[in-house]
Amino acid sequence: VELHCRCIQTESKPIGRHIEKVELIPANSHCEETEIIATLKRTGQEVCLDPEAPWVKKVIQKILSNARR
Amino acid sequence: VELHCRCIQTESKPIGRHIEKVELIPANSHCEETEIIATLKRTGQEVCLDPEAPWVKKVIQKILSNARR
Repeated sequence: VELHCRCIQTESKPIGRHIEKVELIPANSHCEETEIIATLKRTGQEVCLDPEAPWVKKVIQKILSNARR
Repeated sequence: VELHCRCIQTESKPIGRHIEKVELIPANSHCEETEIIATLKRTGQEVCLDPEAPWVKKVIQKILSNARR
């Protein structure tokens, strides 16, 4: 459990193709904003994404729609 | 970086309200399936979710749509 928000600023450039995984953290008692944190391929760097940015929503939709079993 | 798939089985019950955060992992060279791993409130337990289950998609949409600044 985080005791505060993890994101200070969000990435504005569409970096979808560099994303290894995405963490979605709904607003909670420690942070009143929804946070989306992407981990980048290769570097493993963590980058905060804007939950309201259209490209971010598209990246998430694409991950979901690529799922099949 | 994970060297294999992390999920063996997925949770079938709709446990949306118990979710603290959700991790989305697109298919990659180590695992050919999209994996969705939820961390539960209180216990911190990690639970794999079915990316194709309608309730899972709804939970993710809800997290995104609750975001505002």
